[in-house]
Amino acid sequence: MAVAVQLLPLLLLVASALAGYTPRYTPDWDSLDARPLPAWFDEAKFGVFVHWGVYSVPAWGEWFWYYWKDRKDPDAEAFMRNNYPPGFSYADFGPQFQAKFYDPKKWAEIFEAAGARYVVLTSKHHEGFTNWPSPTSWNWNSMDVGPHRDLVGELGHFLREENIHYGLYHSLLEWFNPLYVLDKDNNFTTQNFVMAKALPELVDLVNKYKPDLIWSDGEWEAPDTYWNSTEFLAWLYNDSPVKDKIVVNDRWGIDTGCKHGGYLNCKDKYKPKTVPERKWEMCTTLDKMSWGYREVMNNSDILTYVEIISDLVDVVSLGGNYLLNIGPTKDGVIIPIFQERLLSVGRWLSINGEGIYASKPWRVQMEHTTSRLWFTTKQSAVYVFFADWPMSGVLQLTSPVPTNMTTVMMLGIPELLKWSEDSLDRSLLIYLPKLSPDLADMKIWTLKLKGVE
Amino acid sequence: MAVAVQLLPLLLLVASALAGYTPRYTPDWDSLDARPLPAWFDEAKFGVFVHWGVYSVPAWGEWFWYYWKDRKDPDAEAFMRNNYPPGFSYADFGPQFQAKFYDPKKWAEIFEAAGARYVVLTSKHHEGFTNWPSPTSWNWNSMDVGPHRDLVGELGHFLREENIHYGLYHSLLEWFNPLYVLDKDNNFTTQNFVMAKALPELVDLVNKYKPDLIWSDGEWEAPDTYWNSTEFLAWLYNDSPVKDKIVVNDRWGIDTGCKHGGYLNCKDKYKPKTVPERKWEMCTTLDKMSWGYREVMNNSDILTYVEIISDLVDVVSLGGNYLLNIGPTKDGVIIPIFQERLLSVGRWLSINGEGIYASKPWRVQMEHTTSRLWFTTKQSAVYVFFADWPMSGVLQLTSPVPTNMTTVMMLGIPELLKWSEDSLDRSLLIYLPKLSPDLADMKIWTLKLKGVE
Amino acid sequence: MAVAVQLLPLLLLVASALAGYTPRYTPDWDSLDARPLPAWFDEAKFGVFVHWGVYSVPAWGEWFWYYWKDRKDPDAEAFMRNNYPPGFSYADFGPQFQAKFYDPKKWAEIFEAAGARYVVLTSKHHEGFTNWPSPTSWNWNSMDVGPHRDLVGELGHFLREENIHYGLYHSLLEWFNPLYVLDKDNNFTTQNFVMAKALPELVDLVNKYKPDLIWSDGEWEAPDTYWNSTEFLAWLYNDSPVKDKIVVNDRWGIDTGCKHGGYLNCKDKYKPKTVPERKWEMCTTLDKMSWGYREVMNNSDILTYVEIISDLVDVVSLGGNYLLNIGPTKDGVIIPIFQERLLSVGRWLSINGEGIYASKPWRVQMEHTTSRLWFTTKQSAVYVFFADWPMSGVLQLTSPVPTNMTTVMMLGIPELLKWSEDSLDRSLLIYLPKLSPDLADMKIWTLKLKGVE
Amino acid sequence: MAVAVQLLPLLLLVASALAGYTPRYTPDWDSLDARPLPAWFDEAKFGVFVHWGVYSVPAWGEWFWYYWKDRKDPDAEAFMRNNYPPGFSYADFGPQFQAKFYDPKKWAEIFEAAGARYVVLTSKHHEGFTNWPSPTSWNWNSMDVGPHRDLVGELGHFLREENIHYGLYHSLLEWFNPLYVLDKDNNFTTQNFVMAKALPELVDLVNKYKPDLIWSDGEWEAPDTYWNSTEFLAWLYNDSPVKDKIVVNDRWGIDTGCKHGGYLNCKDKYKPKTVPERKWEMCTTLDKMSWGYREVMNNSDILTYVEIISDLVDVVSLGGNYLLNIGPTKDGVIIPIFQERLLSVGRWLSINGEGIYASKPWRVQMEHTTSRLWFTTKQSAVYVFFADWPMSGVLQLTSPVPTNMTTVMMLGIPELLKWSEDSLDRSLLIYLPKLSPDLADMKIWTLKLKGVE
Repeated sequence: MAVAVQLLPLLLLVASALAGYTPRYTPDWDSLDARPLPAWFDEAKFGVFVHWGVYSVPAWGEWFWYYWKDRKDPDAEAFMRNNYPPGFSYADFGPQFQAKFYDPKKWAEIFEAAGARYVVLTSKHHEGFTNWPSPTSWNWNSMDVGPHRDLVGELGHFLREENIHYGLYHSLLEWFNPLYVLDKDNNFTTQNFVMAKALPELVDLVNKYKPDLIWSDGEWEAPDTYWNSTEFLAWLYNDSPVKDKIVVNDRWGIDTGCKHGGYLNCKDKYKPKTVPERKWEMCTTLDKMSWGYREVMNNSDILTYVEIISDLVDVVSLGGNYLLNIGPTKDGVIIPIFQERLLSVGRWLSINGEGIYASKPWRVQMEHTTSRLWFTTKQSAVYVFFADWPMSGVLQLTSPVPTNMTTVMMLGIPELLKWSEDSLDRSLLIYLPKLSPDLADMKIWTLKLKGVE
Repeated sequence: MAVAVQLLPLLLLVASALAGYTPRYTPDWDSLDARPLPAWFDEAKFGVFVHWGVYSVPAWGEWFWYYWKDRKDPDAEAFMRNNYPPGFSYADFGPQFQAKFYDPKKWAEIFEAAGARYVVLTSKHHEGFTNWPSPTSWNWNSMDVGPHRDLVGELGHFLREENIHYGLYHSLLEWFNPLYVLDKDNNFTTQNFVMAKALPELVDLVNKYKPDLIWSDGEWEAPDTYWNSTEFLAWLYNDSPVKDKIVVNDRWGIDTGCKHGGYLNCKDKYKPKTVPERKWEMCTTLDKMSWGYREVMNNSDILTYVEIISDLVDVVSLGGNYLLNIGPTKDGVIIPIFQERLLSVGRWLSINGEGIYASKPWRVQMEHTTSRLWFTTKQSAVYVFFADWPMSGVLQLTSPVPTNMTTVMMLGIPELLKWSEDSLDRSLLIYLPKLSPDLADMKIWTLKLKGVE
Repeated sequence: MAVAVQLLPLLLLVASALAGYTPRYTPDWDSLDARPLPAWFDEAKFGVFVHWGVYSVPAWGEWFWYYWKDRKDPDAEAFMRNNYPPGFSYADFGPQFQAKFYDPKKWAEIFEAAGARYVVLTSKHHEGFTNWPSPTSWNWNSMDVGPHRDLVGELGHFLREENIHYGLYHSLLEWFNPLYVLDKDNNFTTQNFVMAKALPELVDLVNKYKPDLIWSDGEWEAPDTYWNSTEFLAWLYNDSPVKDKIVVNDRWGIDTGCKHGGYLNCKDKYKPKTVPERKWEMCTTLDKMSWGYREVMNNSDILTYVEIISDLVDVVSLGGNYLLNIGPTKDGVIIPIFQERLLSVGRWLSINGEGIYASKPWRVQMEHTTSRLWFTTKQSAVYVFFADWPMSGVLQLTSPVPTNMTTVMMLGIPELLKWSEDSLDRSLLIYLPKLSPDLADMKIWTLKLKGVE
Repeated sequence: MAVAVQLLPLLLLVASALAGYTPRYTPDWDSLDARPLPAWFDEAKFGVFVHWGVYSVPAWGEWFWYYWKDRKDPDAEAFMRNNYPPGFSYADFGPQFQAKFYDPKKWAEIFEAAGARYVVLTSKHHEGFTNWPSPTSWNWNSMDVGPHRDLVGELGHFLREENIHYGLYHSLLEWFNPLYVLDKDNNFTTQNFVMAKALPELVDLVNKYKPDLIWSDGEWEAPDTYWNSTEFLAWLYNDSPVKDKIVVNDRWGIDTGCKHGGYLNCKDKYKPKTVPERKWEMCTTLDKMSWGYREVMNNSDILTYVEIISDLVDVVSLGGNYLLNIGPTKDGVIIPIFQERLLSVGRWLSINGEGIYASKPWRVQMEHTTSRLWFTTKQSAVYVFFADWPMSGVLQLTSPVPTNMTTVMMLGIPELLKWSEDSLDRSLLIYLPKLSPDLADMKIWTLKLKGVE
């Protein structure tokens, strides 16, 4: 049976059908899109994305191979010319991806301290190198070459110890895989690559690591019919060992982005203006220039604390999840600046997370004022996040309508705050407290309103 | 169409059948064994075998990986422990296989000067690394890793310029390929590996390089039905681009050795006692300890000139071909001792080849005397090879029956030799000439008898 | 003449004496200690220290070689055992010190932006590897091995463009230099090492790079008479090309620390409790665990912004200079967290530097209160640095005695602040202003008092 | 004391003089040249020369560094450009000189089997890298970098076990040593290099390894007065631990070659036409193109067996020694072709050595005939070596005058040979025997004449 799953997942579908199962989902988007999203995902709100692979060796950005070999980018070519002997190939980097100091327990602890409720690791990026011992990626995986470890499996183990959900990024395409190139040259009328590599590996990942999330990517050159995406998803939802908890995104073929799948990513770093109908996630990266580790990084390339928290609050107010990326080094080190940013998010969430985790968008997301101000709601409370401390010490809100039941608190301070209603425009005036240095450092503060409409 | 050939050669068979072809051979041994061997092979007599691959990097013998990882051979383990960091894997050797000085033109010239009429190169050994850019061995082939060159293609080009036939060694099994291991664990009831790797690569080799010979190996763990050998051979003989000239050996499944296929190898270094019914070949190796290059080699490990020529003459007298192996270094150098031995064979053949190339076994192969003496025949001549120069200067032969038409010559000397018939036992007495130093150095000399029975 | 200087600097002294010069300093501590310190050093206050060398390759701390080979530290040994082949030596690391991305212009710009008025680079640490092409350290210097560049010279060039003073750290001892070991075994009764290496290199550094500062180290095992320190300093002060501007520290022999030389370092990270009689400097390092780059660094290992600024203010209030260390990577990268810390110091100094640069200790250094508060003075002003913003908004100072001429400002705010005198204890009460977010982020603020006593 | 010897050998001379010794030799050529050569050297006749160093890594010839960096040889530059990253330096090769398989016991056994009575190893070539842990070549020696072993010491140990004399090649100059370059730029009016490197290392070699021979080289750019050669030799002959047995050659300064020293080498591969007045040695190399190992070597580049034996006999007949060079690989392997040649010399000497070892030139060296024929003498015997076996079976000699005491033997055959005196020209006619194949393979045979004049 293992064999069949290995190479012929579709046969398994047939087999399971014959065995008398009645799948709830059929391999078409109408059926698949109708599946309710497992609740854990919307409640999680904040996740950490990890890009790690052979590209961490040249450390030039995770698209290095493509820029070098396909686009003939002059900088990429100069980088190779200046630092490597002629003819050095991308695969030759493999043994240098050593993960010498990879400490997945420590990673998991950092992610926990960052307040992440899920973590998404690149199991395989467009380079095709698998971070687990894939039987269909022999000698181009992390067990055979370089780290000599099951990077995917080890992280999963420690994430579960921290009760963090585990997502696996998986690129459908592989830029330079000859079978993929062949199919592409055939206008995707053949599926050599899908049958020999993409599907077996997706199924292998699911069976071995039982992920909570599959973060699909690399779909954009071929239709979902090439990828057999709906068949895979039907199996995933009906019969896979993770059928009840699994969440997927929307990258399953040329036209699926922003349309089909589990939740919507649309484009990288995409953020809508209003609350979308379906659950969505914004992915972004601490190093503004790259998802994979770059050796030459400037301090100014890195998202600031305030940029991160603003983004997080903005995204959550719009019903999204915020997936923040880091790129570990080839040796598996999360560099201090990334640690610092992640831990600062964790510090913020430890006070303000109440208004984030498991919250829902409120009827208003932002107020149209010059100051930065966002809302969420949970149970009967409305949460107001504001980034600009008024010089007057009085915060004015126009959207929440106070009642005689209204109470106002600031997260991190036990006492109720004084408030009043503006006699002219009926806006809510909140008298802000003095802050301890720690609270002052939050830079974005959270008010919890009860009894407002 | 290219795609179909790539991955599904069997479909091609079906396709070609549907297209109206009438294959002469059916995929069963009765039919395949009945195919006449293309004449070039028997006429060639002498070939050079070349073992070259990632094993040339540790340079410990071509079975290094197996001894190290499967047998846990203490020497192999010590070699790794003493010279590499812990965890270093076999695949990590890949980038060090650099072929820096690979000069296929020079190789071909050396093989030509050695008198070789065919050359067999390991296109892929049991390690699975392909010496050509195989689409189904991505990042584990000589174009993607290490040499960054098509080793198979480049040698072929220059061999053809020298009019040397080109054979490709191909190992069916790959010790550690996960798909092969999977099939093996399934008692070869599944064919994941055959479909994904072995057959596509055989077909790819045939289509790309149009070899004259496929030297199959690595067949011994599974039946020919697992390997789909008869189907492949039927295609090869009926429809492949090399159907008229292709020659294959006998290693196509557990029980095929010494029985089925094109010609017989039986075991490595095997030599029969009498003339077999079918064409055969003895393969042997200059370094008695290994087929692949070994860095630590003693002079005494290497076949001597006389051992080689004796073997060659012995084999040819028994109707066989003699395939003599060398292992180039990881940088593609044929070391001087190997050059010397090959060139000394060439020097011998330049004088004595007349009795070798295109010859047939005579009615007697050897005389039962203490001296070393062999026969071949070609057209009306009988050739006598002898290694022990009689102190008396008179060579006595008991097998050839002289007639009044009899003439005797020594190859390398234009004049006829004196001979007489022994009055007692009717044996033929040949009066050997004085030799020039060059001829004396031959160590094994050839007499050409005409008009004997 | 160049030769003589090269190897026999003392001869030069004799020569210059014979040539009729009248040296102002004699080679004894009484004379040398009496030399006035060039003014630039006391005015500079803040410098950046850079530890860079072959130790940046194992990236385990700059004492790695010693811990590994002399102390047989289990962690160091395990590090080597796990990551390198047996027998790998420290010198074998040399070619891996590549400085691939070393950009001294960018370094100088970062140091300028950090507000540093001087930079001290390790020209040579205890490992003996010289970061310049020293003729007496052939094949163990940055031109011959690894970077293939003159690291010392290149940085000097760009520092001068930024008007930053240039200091060169130089270790007298070299742990494993056989000549040093020999002298040590001889109880320092011989000077093989001093004559062949230490002195020629000191003189070479001075002549080639004309540094403003020599930061001597590695003196502790031998008396100054072994090192010929007083002779060297007499030459440096009397006849060297930098005699007028050169500054040195106090590490010139077993007993010179905290006693003799130019200014006092005493121990690493040493900070006195009261203002010392002589100029001093505190050196410390951003990575609390190491001076050289460590690959595995935790965020918590790194000094925080507030720790740095507190230290800086504390040191300057006590008349010291503050020399803050970073360790670039083997490729010459200043990692983002180090950039961030340095730039944050620069941001602070851009507002508050007026009270730092060229200031002097005031009659009081700190007030004995629970809050953190320091003083400096410059011209007629007294500067007050405070780290704890009073909840009341009123800062109370007991040391400065107000007069009717008293004015109070906060650096960064143009307006005068209101103040009053406490009627009970005559303390000075200063009414603090509202702060912009940028000023609030300073965390340590500076008041400028004029007309106080 | 050790220190003084280390760096100041000349002081030792003074010291020993003061201590009351009466040196037999004074530091001038008249005195030194008059020293009788220790007898072992003339008796030895055949030695093996070994060139091994960092140049064995690029394996392009031992002058690689010079061709590459000084001459800018296009081939050398192309070799680097094609195989190494830009900026790769010669010193960067150091760690790759690994001597992985260096087995000095096996080397000594091979040299013994070759019949060598002395072996000369490059302790240091013009590259300056010392094959022993020289205290004045820190981090540029075989203990600190690459092999991590004392190559000189280990070979010495095993040579002595085989009773083979040990010679050390030592290059005075070092092309790129900055101290040497400095002295050269000063027209050798300074001796920085000699004092800091050349002399300390010569003395260190003598004291540590007590060699039987110093094979000096690299003398040609500077006069012997620069090198302090006569002082060194006076110490060597008078007071060194090897004063009784030590032998040196003639390369001690611009004008010393072919004139002064112990025995004469004159030029590399030099062979005089007549017997010189002083003992001499011809050095030559198996690889005609290089002394150091070359990776790309053709069979035709290597001296043949007959060329070697002819040279040996020729040299010995003229009173010389024959020093035959091999270049081991960077891993310490003596490749098979070199083993084969050496062992073939040993095989020849095992039969014919009687006429070689401890022989003297006879009154005639060669006969002026077309055939190759040489003479030596030992005790009362005259040895005749001939390379051309006469077709007639009768060898004619014109130089030896037979007497009635005359006997003739061939080495390897116990029986006396028949001889006669030619009635016409009184030449000696020797009736050659039938040869066994082994003796026939000698190619050059030795006759031993007794009772001739």
